[in-house]
Amino acid sequence: MSNVVALNESREPAQTPSLDRLMSLTATDLARVNEVILEQMQSPVLLIPQLAGHIIAAGGKRLRPMLTLSAARLCGYEGDRHTGLAASVEFFHTATLLHDDVVDESDLRRGAATANAVWGNKSSVLVGDFLFARAFELMVADGSLDVLHILSRASSVIAEGEVHQLITANDTDTTEEDYLEVIASKTARLFAAATEIGAVVSDRPVEEREALHAFGHNIGMAFQLIDDMLDYSARQATLGKAVGDDFREGKITLPVILAFKHGDDEARAFWRRTLEDLEQKKGDLKRAVQMLDSVGALTETIERAREYSRRANDALSIFPDCDHKQALQEAAAFAVNRSF
Amino acid sequence: MSNVVALNESREPAQTPSLDRLMSLTATDLARVNEVILEQMQSPVLLIPQLAGHIIAAGGKRLRPMLTLSAARLCGYEGDRHTGLAASVEFFHTATLLHDDVVDESDLRRGAATANAVWGNKSSVLVGDFLFARAFELMVADGSLDVLHILSRASSVIAEGEVHQLITANDTDTTEEDYLEVIASKTARLFAAATEIGAVVSDRPVEEREALHAFGHNIGMAFQLIDDMLDYSARQATLGKAVGDDFREGKITLPVILAFKHGDDEARAFWRRTLEDLEQKKGDLKRAVQMLDSVGALTETIERAREYSRRANDALSIFPDCDHKQALQEAAAFAVNRSF
Repeated sequence: MSNVVALNESREPAQTPSLDRLMSLTATDLARVNEVILEQMQSPVLLIPQLAGHIIAAGGKRLRPMLTLSAARLCGYEGDRHTGLAASVEFFHTATLLHDDVVDESDLRRGAATANAVWGNKSSVLVGDFLFARAFELMVADGSLDVLHILSRASSVIAEGEVHQLITANDTDTTEEDYLEVIASKTARLFAAATEIGAVVSDRPVEEREALHAFGHNIGMAFQLIDDMLDYSARQATLGKAVGDDFREGKITLPVILAFKHGDDEARAFWRRTLEDLEQKKGDLKRAVQMLDSVGALTETIERAREYSRRANDALSIFPDCDHKQALQEAAAFAVNRSF
Repeated sequence: MSNVVALNESREPAQTPSLDRLMSLTATDLARVNEVILEQMQSPVLLIPQLAGHIIAAGGKRLRPMLTLSAARLCGYEGDRHTGLAASVEFFHTATLLHDDVVDESDLRRGAATANAVWGNKSSVLVGDFLFARAFELMVADGSLDVLHILSRASSVIAEGEVHQLITANDTDTTEEDYLEVIASKTARLFAAATEIGAVVSDRPVEEREALHAFGHNIGMAFQLIDDMLDYSARQATLGKAVGDDFREGKITLPVILAFKHGDDEARAFWRRTLEDLEQKKGDLKRAVQMLDSVGALTETIERAREYSRRANDALSIFPDCDHKQALQEAAAFAVNRSF
């Protein structure tokens, strides 16, 4: 356990950043987003609200919609189009989660059984399609072609990233560049779209759009890097999903890429056996964590995340100081320091 | 085999209707659609064009894009926006085919191995998502919110229909109304959208939009009814997919609903055993076909299809006579008389 403590210490600043400020600033808007989500997941085909409700209503941090809401307010937006679009972003995210869980054959998400574990893969695929379609309907109802352009492009890039990730699975030759491309597409792109549309609904100039896109991209990168680190170091009860999922599936994430690069022949043989051949035996996950720790791969992953978080922070420098700017910058710090 | 001959005879008019006229009238436009399809399925993630190429380039009748092209020309359209939108419709269709084959666990489509049989379910789910996203990108590039409204709504209705179908599978209590709702959503809705957008790009009045929507809906209904009939009567080599797929999966289609309704206790026990409990033994498919035949369920299904085909034909009455009107009406007749 010493490594976990060490990791936490190295990530701990004077005051632990949290999402509290962001949550409090967006609380009223987010309540409206949740109403839209509940309305829009209804269908006469009752399995749809049942299954969608299981994954959507059960929670999650609602980080992406909060980012859309706060980005719009940061740009001085005073209308309420941003709530429908934030709901659209969350539908997108949920659709990809449903398909991800099918592809990853996951049983546990956010501390509860996954939809595919309860209702089967077929239902998850089709209800995911429904939520994806609803996300587009919500955007079309908003009526901005600029927003539609951003989110339709994001959706194909995300799908490309997911396929790319599938290809790199079980391949220990996967490079850092491959990995960074995968997470830029599958994760950071939706964050970037979520924040950029905050500037679009506010009719702000292109510099602010680009700044918010950069903010979203970088916080998304930090977020995913920590996600991949936590899969080897968090406690399952805190994380709400099964620790070691990536290892068991042979997913090639940065900690593993670094350990493979820094490791000796014996280490590489270990990673090839466990991740390429998926020949895993009792104690292998524990040994994997020790090996990652011994070459500093988890600490290095956190350092990379911290760099993206810094870039996210800097991207907001063109905006004047205000509560929303502080909340977003604290969210970027939280992306690195979180334990869940 | 006598029933197959009888069926063919009962569907044979003086001159066998075909898609030849529609294909010839749309040939130039369709060549452009195929170019757009090939361009837009490209991706640096090579599995995407490989897998998409397998299902898209391998062919299929391209019926839906041809309907969009012809509907636009029927409305006097002289531009070329309709080709991008026709490609979008085909991407949508292909995305749903990829997910359908995963859900149905199919091995054979259009005489070739399904993508999921070659590359696995995971790839099919994610490449389906990519094609779905690309369909939206193509529509967004076109820039008509009216078109986006029609197709985004269609996409959520289609997903609802697919989930509804999943629920009715293996349930011999499924009613005709349930079945008709399922096929109206999962199949006819895309046909209706495909033809309606022909009027939209042509800026035609609402009556023509509605007429083309009705045409598309009705030809789609006829098309699916015959599809479900052929699953019990076609020859596999002609159909290009495995005959009896619906039976093996326990899918509840109109022929079965009618046979269950018209059958005696022994017949109902047979359908319950084979379709609900999926306890099927050698000879059961042959017996199923005989039972469908003995109560006239296949003939009745064809009659229903013929009625929808008539309605499709009538829906075009507001348009003056022209080559495209004739081609579309012949396509409606073909939907009933086809053997593939």
